[in-house]
Amino acid sequence: MENCIGCEIISGGLTPPGGFIHNGEQWTLTHSIAPGGAPLRGMLILQTRRHCTQLADLTPQESRALGPLLQVTCRALEELFQPARVYAGSFGEGVPHVHFMLIPRLDGMPIGAELLKQVLEQHLWTCPADEAAALAAQVREKLRNVL
Amino acid sequence: MENCIGCEIISGGLTPPGGFIHNGEQWTLTHSIAPGGAPLRGMLILQTRRHCTQLADLTPQESRALGPLLQVTCRALEELFQPARVYAGSFGEGVPHVHFMLIPRLDGMPIGAELLKQVLEQHLWTCPADEAAALAAQVREKLRNVL
Repeated sequence: MENCIGCEIISGGLTPPGGFIHNGEQWTLTHSIAPGGAPLRGMLILQTRRHCTQLADLTPQESRALGPLLQVTCRALEELFQPARVYAGSFGEGVPHVHFMLIPRLDGMPIGAELLKQVLEQHLWTCPADEAAALAAQVREKLRNVL
Repeated sequence: MENCIGCEIISGGLTPPGGFIHNGEQWTLTHSIAPGGAPLRGMLILQTRRHCTQLADLTPQESRALGPLLQVTCRALEELFQPARVYAGSFGEGVPHVHFMLIPRLDGMPIGAELLKQVLEQHLWTCPADEAAALAAQVREKLRNVL
């Protein structure tokens, strides 16, 4: 689909820091690319390979693969960051391609909707691209044995 | 687990409007109960039957069942409300029991994190309990053929 950031990532036209963490048949996992250019520290994006815009439209294969991928990715983020919680949400309408944002809530970050507002609208909690790439590599290594 | 609203719902000590929409081996689906007493219109809660606090701790059975349940529930909400989008997120730290909030974004509602803030912190977009109960019954009817 043209003009869809999700599809650009899948096609290789746009490379998130560190490249694909997981490049599966149904879903891909990458580090986030922030709207302003700086990636959001540790925020990963799990998105469908296929262009689709609604969770309701997931195929049986996509929906069956979703939960196990969420679980192992949250586990990897926990082991790497020891966050208070890993948030998982699909509500980003800026990119009309089904994706879950996985956000480790680190020390000093606010709770709940306020954190999401700061991350998604105010673009706080960013990090340098090379740090995000290194993090992507660490998650990839952790997932190597379970995916 | 004592003092866990999630566990109170599972045990029957607390009944969301309309009761269980789905009462499965791994997950249950109910209409939301708002912190202030008034349910949030159409917001459903998919939670684990077992008390657990992190997505990383989901069992293989729980994680395999998650995606298909999210998909069919989003489909039911779409058919009932024709929302612009159904949001799905697990980031409510007020209830330390793994749950996904499913929120149909209806006409007039803001987009993204602002909607979550209005729903979760400002307790806007509520509805009378009997309306929520009727809605729960409608979703239950829709899911009857697919679960």
